[in-house]
Amino acid sequence: MEESIIKNNERIENIQFGDLKLIQNLDWFCYGVDAVLLADFCRAKRGWRIADLGTGTGIIPLILHYIYDPSHIIGIEIQDEVADMARRSVLLNDLQDTIQILNMDLNEAPQKLTIKDYDLVVSNPPYMAKNEGIINTDDIKALSRHEIKASVEDVIAVAYDLLKPHGHFCLVHRPHRLVDILYLCRKYRLEPKKIRFVHPNKNKKPNIMLLHCTKYGKPELKFMDPLYVYDENGDYSEEIYRIYRRK
Amino acid sequence: MEESIIKNNERIENIQFGDLKLIQNLDWFCYGVDAVLLADFCRAKRGWRIADLGTGTGIIPLILHYIYDPSHIIGIEIQDEVADMARRSVLLNDLQDTIQILNMDLNEAPQKLTIKDYDLVVSNPPYMAKNEGIINTDDIKALSRHEIKASVEDVIAVAYDLLKPHGHFCLVHRPHRLVDILYLCRKYRLEPKKIRFVHPNKNKKPNIMLLHCTKYGKPELKFMDPLYVYDENGDYSEEIYRIYRRK
Repeated sequence: MEESIIKNNERIENIQFGDLKLIQNLDWFCYGVDAVLLADFCRAKRGWRIADLGTGTGIIPLILHYIYDPSHIIGIEIQDEVADMARRSVLLNDLQDTIQILNMDLNEAPQKLTIKDYDLVVSNPPYMAKNEGIINTDDIKALSRHEIKASVEDVIAVAYDLLKPHGHFCLVHRPHRLVDILYLCRKYRLEPKKIRFVHPNKNKKPNIMLLHCTKYGKPELKFMDPLYVYDENGDYSEEIYRIYRRK
Repeated sequence: MEESIIKNNERIENIQFGDLKLIQNLDWFCYGVDAVLLADFCRAKRGWRIADLGTGTGIIPLILHYIYDPSHIIGIEIQDEVADMARRSVLLNDLQDTIQILNMDLNEAPQKLTIKDYDLVVSNPPYMAKNEGIINTDDIKALSRHEIKASVEDVIAVAYDLLKPHGHFCLVHRPHRLVDILYLCRKYRLEPKKIRFVHPNKNKKPNIMLLHCTKYGKPELKFMDPLYVYDENGDYSEEIYRIYRRK
């Protein structure tokens, strides 16, 4: 079964959350620490309905299922081949009753989805603005890194549309986009309530941020303790071990 | 001279920047580390024209004069007795040709000031929103801590009005107001360009933030390395020593 489910350049990886397996294409964008941190950060509850905007390999729905046991997760992915790969990962783990991969532009989701009252929307979107940095000539990589098909404003607007009142929106992004993101979240009435900065170590500035917003929330942002990826000796910090070895 | 210039409950303090002295009223709000951090953070240039919104004791104009040698600094203070005390501190240091304390509502400054093209506007405003926390029954303390006379939106709007194009706005505030502040700065076209979080130590979340905005700046926020006030042994960190002992 495992052999026939993968295509050229693909590899099946054990992602260290139970027995979960993930198909990745080594030529494309592979999942990173960001997805794992977001899954840990979002603190979903059992039975919740969750949507992941720009799901890519489907890594986030898989981890969310493993940690929180939500009732239903949809992963929206615009790229045909990537959505197909994510769907095969769901099948490989026999999770097709819980996780549904939808191959569509996330901007179409509010019209296309019949049920919208999600408890939680998460996203690990492309980090770079359209006009920022070098665009990868390989289309699939470019779409994963740059806001070509969907801007962070699209992600936030769609999250608002899919959430029920007082539902949660959790995003992982880069700190240099902090102003854009806080401005847009407030504009779309997803009030930022909790933020956590992730630093490579205690002497470095943050390179990842985790943001939790609540639809129609009251303004007041709580800072969480910083998360340091490495300790003084260059080993992973205790908290990174906690996040990765969670069982 | 020094004896006659102070009133009941007031004390003259040597603030450790050259020979500068400051009059403080022990019953009121006394200056703290925030003002010193802001003065260090704002990196003014020689000859600049600077405005300090809500100057209180006048501590920030004094330190800015000492560090950067700007051509002119105005400190705007709404409370009569506080403005009077700040004016006496300016006289005590014989800086009346450089520093001018204006006793007015900062909201009136854009109409009342004839020259407006400031290079830099700084502010260490009240940190608490009007409806937040316990309001001090002593009026002077309450006005220094709560947004009673001026909200952070007023400060940002007035900073915009007083600055020349591409002029700088530097603010010290509390992290829990981050969303309000970034949202309003962008709204008033003072684009946040640089942010620094100040943590009590490496294991604690930040409790102070320093923000540098540029009028009409291009969106992109740079994070500076975190500033830790205390080191592992509970002593002041090297950087705090650098900031305080600067000569």
